[in-house]
Amino acid sequence: MSDRNRKPPFRRGGGKAPGKAPDKAPDKGRGSPRRPAWRDREAGPDGPVILYGWHTVAAALANPQRRIRKLLVTENAARRLADDNIDTRVAPEIVRPGLIDQRLGPDAVHQGLLAEADPLPSPDIDTLEQEGIVLVLDQITDPHNVGAILRSAAAFAVKAIVTTARHSPEATGVLAKSASGALELVPLVTVQNLARALTELNDQGFMTVGLDSQGSENLASVALRQPLALVLGAEGKGLRQLTRETCSVVARLDMPGESKSLNVSNAAVLALYIGASRLGLMG
Amino acid sequence: MSDRNRKPPFRRGGGKAPGKAPDKAPDKGRGSPRRPAWRDREAGPDGPVILYGWHTVAAALANPQRRIRKLLVTENAARRLADDNIDTRVAPEIVRPGLIDQRLGPDAVHQGLLAEADPLPSPDIDTLEQEGIVLVLDQITDPHNVGAILRSAAAFAVKAIVTTARHSPEATGVLAKSASGALELVPLVTVQNLARALTELNDQGFMTVGLDSQGSENLASVALRQPLALVLGAEGKGLRQLTRETCSVVARLDMPGESKSLNVSNAAVLALYIGASRLGLMG
Repeated sequence: MSDRNRKPPFRRGGGKAPGKAPDKAPDKGRGSPRRPAWRDREAGPDGPVILYGWHTVAAALANPQRRIRKLLVTENAARRLADDNIDTRVAPEIVRPGLIDQRLGPDAVHQGLLAEADPLPSPDIDTLEQEGIVLVLDQITDPHNVGAILRSAAAFAVKAIVTTARHSPEATGVLAKSASGALELVPLVTVQNLARALTELNDQGFMTVGLDSQGSENLASVALRQPLALVLGAEGKGLRQLTRETCSVVARLDMPGESKSLNVSNAAVLALYIGASRLGLMG
Repeated sequence: MSDRNRKPPFRRGGGKAPGKAPDKAPDKGRGSPRRPAWRDREAGPDGPVILYGWHTVAAALANPQRRIRKLLVTENAARRLADDNIDTRVAPEIVRPGLIDQRLGPDAVHQGLLAEADPLPSPDIDTLEQEGIVLVLDQITDPHNVGAILRSAAAFAVKAIVTTARHSPEATGVLAKSASGALELVPLVTVQNLARALTELNDQGFMTVGLDSQGSENLASVALRQPLALVLGAEGKGLRQLTRETCSVVARLDMPGESKSLNVSNAAVLALYIGASRLGLMG
């Protein structure tokens, strides 16, 4: 949900209104050195996808489309994999936890598992089914947010997530961990140009709905139809102008509180719930 | 939303079911060294609250209840504060961006503002209004998640957030930044014992609804009433047993996808939307 061009909502009591928010970097978007240890060492653009954590690795092992190159596990994790009767597909290398710590950096909660794998194939946009919901992400850069959005997408049976090749986090590392296995469930369609992709979705018969605090209608009141593409912009910046102009509708999420600004993954799940409910997709 | 005791949902294609998820640390809960630079240097339990980033600091400056001890700003940020006519209340110290970088560590997106402030007062649980919605957090430890939940709470006019003094992140630093100003809008009620707090809420006439994937009813089908307390547990662990037993109802969030597990802040905003809609609080 963008809060671009909107007065910040945190006026309270007798305090002065803080005025217009600066059109500035979204959370963590500073190009700053949020660079996990493994980044420097091996993953280039052609490097392997790094997957760690129980859910993330177990989901990858359960996905026959995911080629596993290498699997490092601690003794404990190896025992758990065996107890749960999980086919590891490659022979796991038993390692000390410290070695995985070293590979991932101190912040990664890896639970004793690290896999190196190939990226999953990115389907073409013209192969999307003409039903249900797809999500379109316009330069959402924070991998925690994209990971959380992937999880919600899997929970709401989203058909695909469309992102740009540039200005999107790679489907590896922190994003994969935050997605908690959902990376294996929701196809990621990577496009060069988002406006062109939206035009293609429009041409294919999708209703393309951009979410923006400046939207002319409340999403819950829009006459939604399938196939539906919900389009989300980055926090702070919101939808880019060309993105907004290419959507069939630009809608806002009405909420009763003083502040109207949500974390982007929170806005995404709300849009999904409203969309799926109104389309009769809640099962 | 807990996924405790539930089969992980990421079976796909011909892959083997990965079996029961280990009852293990939630995201980032490892007691690992996710310790920003300012932690080591000054903030003890009695240290100041550290606020950084435009929204977070501007909201604090606009909150007359928040005592500001010190304000460090870059020249650019000082200009922006002046342009927006913001009363800084204390004389800002103009500093180089590098100095704030140094104070916060390289990951913090501070946008040229850092404030040291007093913590806000924590209201007593028996002073809560007997209307609307409160959120209760059962040992949710990740400050990004709690920050995002605060933002959603502000957007849904939540009356208060109840958390435990232990096993909750402090209302400073990353949490404050993730809350993007909402820390100034939603009172945080800190309690020693969550089950006792829930009993008190029950006695005060609150309907206490725990969210758990094992819940007996779908939240959207529960006959909700005001005042309502929505109770959320940590990812992975879910609600503790005593928490669950003390709730009037334990409900799940039904979703149509293969995976039913959401990031906890995503589960929170969905519960808020369903609660506020059904209580006629959407405005």
